[in-house]
Amino acid sequence: MNMETRLTDLEVGFDVPALPGMREQDIQTPCLILDLDALEANIRKMGDYARSHGMRLRVHGKMHKSVDVAKLQMRIGNAIGVCCQKVSEAEVFARGGIKDILVSNEVRDPAKIDRLARLPKLGASVIVCVDDLTNVPELSEAAQRHGTTLDCFVEIDCGAGRCGVTTTEAVVQIAQAIDGAPGLNFKGLQAYQGAMQHMEQYEERRAKLDAAIAMVKAAVTGLEAVGLKPQLVSGGGTGSYYFESNSGVYNELQCGSYAFMDADYGRIRDKDGNRIDQGEFQNALFILTSVMSHAKADKAVVDAGLKAQSVDSGLPVVFGRTDVKYVKCSDEHGVVDDPGAVLKPNDKLRLVPGHCDPTCNVHDWYVGVRGGKVEVVWPVSARGRAY
Amino acid sequence: MNMETRLTDLEVGFDVPALPGMREQDIQTPCLILDLDALEANIRKMGDYARSHGMRLRVHGKMHKSVDVAKLQMRIGNAIGVCCQKVSEAEVFARGGIKDILVSNEVRDPAKIDRLARLPKLGASVIVCVDDLTNVPELSEAAQRHGTTLDCFVEIDCGAGRCGVTTTEAVVQIAQAIDGAPGLNFKGLQAYQGAMQHMEQYEERRAKLDAAIAMVKAAVTGLEAVGLKPQLVSGGGTGSYYFESNSGVYNELQCGSYAFMDADYGRIRDKDGNRIDQGEFQNALFILTSVMSHAKADKAVVDAGLKAQSVDSGLPVVFGRTDVKYVKCSDEHGVVDDPGAVLKPNDKLRLVPGHCDPTCNVHDWYVGVRGGKVEVVWPVSARGRAY
Repeated sequence: MNMETRLTDLEVGFDVPALPGMREQDIQTPCLILDLDALEANIRKMGDYARSHGMRLRVHGKMHKSVDVAKLQMRIGNAIGVCCQKVSEAEVFARGGIKDILVSNEVRDPAKIDRLARLPKLGASVIVCVDDLTNVPELSEAAQRHGTTLDCFVEIDCGAGRCGVTTTEAVVQIAQAIDGAPGLNFKGLQAYQGAMQHMEQYEERRAKLDAAIAMVKAAVTGLEAVGLKPQLVSGGGTGSYYFESNSGVYNELQCGSYAFMDADYGRIRDKDGNRIDQGEFQNALFILTSVMSHAKADKAVVDAGLKAQSVDSGLPVVFGRTDVKYVKCSDEHGVVDDPGAVLKPNDKLRLVPGHCDPTCNVHDWYVGVRGGKVEVVWPVSARGRAY
Repeated sequence: MNMETRLTDLEVGFDVPALPGMREQDIQTPCLILDLDALEANIRKMGDYARSHGMRLRVHGKMHKSVDVAKLQMRIGNAIGVCCQKVSEAEVFARGGIKDILVSNEVRDPAKIDRLARLPKLGASVIVCVDDLTNVPELSEAAQRHGTTLDCFVEIDCGAGRCGVTTTEAVVQIAQAIDGAPGLNFKGLQAYQGAMQHMEQYEERRAKLDAAIAMVKAAVTGLEAVGLKPQLVSGGGTGSYYFESNSGVYNELQCGSYAFMDADYGRIRDKDGNRIDQGEFQNALFILTSVMSHAKADKAVVDAGLKAQSVDSGLPVVFGRTDVKYVKCSDEHGVVDDPGAVLKPNDKLRLVPGHCDPTCNVHDWYVGVRGGKVEVVWPVSARGRAY
């Protein structure tokens, strides 16, 4: 494609914010951009870590919802497949050719269970989580109806306070039921401590993970006692993967945010007290935004508001600048303090979003840039697939 | 379509949460549903109000981003067209056949200005806002390039603290520049006080609007003195439309949220101290969610988390129930206090979202229900069109 291609050459109405070959400053904003050098470095780093620690790396596709990013993680980052949170996401990844998919969540709606049981027909091996005995016959019947096999994890709530059982007795009881159910295969344990990933201090996170590991070890012992040793024990996130990797009981990681990073993860510290976005990983995901008004001398208004991001974990941070600060967010606008009046209309800023997962979920496209040029435009393949 | 149609009859992988004829309990969740009786009542009520007060009603399409809802508002609710916030939204509405479109925002990117100037070729009259003299030649050149006319509003910041000028002198200066620019037509004033719409008390809101009205009146007097009487003075939202309608200076309303309502608007009071969602309007928009886990006796986990809504204005409220309460939100899950353990897996709840606009923007579909059955499935036509 001609490097001079501009959106203005297209017909009225278009649905992409950029085309390959464009200059970064011509991208239509607000828009998600990926710094491809940083993305590849993050992906390689985690992949190398997992390989050197003998861990399977099942990357969390719910973070990016992108078949293209998942395949990059498999190609250069040692990923064996993906996990995701919804049947509709699993459908997108399976249709995209991913062969090893964990739905790291419970599925209870009869139509969703039916959809899940059809997925192996696309050539994917599918694992689903279970935390309730009554779910076992539901899954078993669907698998039998479609002549497929569903692998099952029993989910342990090891501190997140969401789904999952909390006693070894319950784990063993459900695992035995799965083991005895036609069409189901007891595969292992889901034990993700989601509530501690964003705790700032390493030692705080370690304490939470120590408790989680103790629960998981007890469950494994209980399972071994009834001849049901789990093949996989899966968990771990960007704020904890070193704890699981050195636990002696987990053998699979589920990290997601490491590939992109965000402002909230940027606040957490590694064991030496350093910010994890300044060494361990680097910011690869940005919201590119433009100044659209500067009618007040010390305030710029930019075009990235609540429709371009989720602010559940705080406001975005302007990347690489200390002279301006994003201070307020409404539906369509961000207000940027600009005490030196250095910004002009149509100036671009890179924002590090507060929280990557729900921010990616409002965008349709990732625009991959390198050296100031657009290199790829990837769809957010499973965007909106919450059902 | 057969009333018994189920999603399970479809092939592996699908991209709609419901089909017309389905029972409400079979809708794949989480999903936006519209109570069509409530929606129509809200739309008729505001339409009747505008007509009886001699106001043009330009409904805010940025709230719902739906061509279908906009057309319903024009058909039964006295709407003359739409406003929206982004050129990409305007493209969707113009392609959908809406003929009177206001982009109630500034446009500064050269490619966006070019796209805007092409829009009248689709048969729509297009108004855009201006708050900077240097924007006038940019818009004029683009309109001349495409042989079109762009109507222009000068935007007054009457209290929201975002875009817009703050003095009559600046209003007059920009209006004169527009009036003298080929391809542009000075049409009137944009004066939306966005910062007061959600103030709880009627008298608080009135005080803010009184100040806004005084600014607007001064600007109109200044414009009349130079022979530039504005044809349209446009503003007003769901928390203020009665003030603008009785101001003697506004002649166009821009209400949006009245059609759907949300939990944040539910907290504001009318002049008699009543909640505006219990009489003035009614909740028409819900997130339908399902219980996916109840592994702890007093907590249910539902499938609507941050990917199904924006929590910038607080958590959603469970509609029509006081026995259960949505208390916590993470990426994929909501935690519901269920002290009486009354919920079971796959039970459905209707949630009133905290803030309708950014919540609608994460969904691809509106499922319109009446009498427990799905009647229509409408795309969120301009979803994600933030650029």
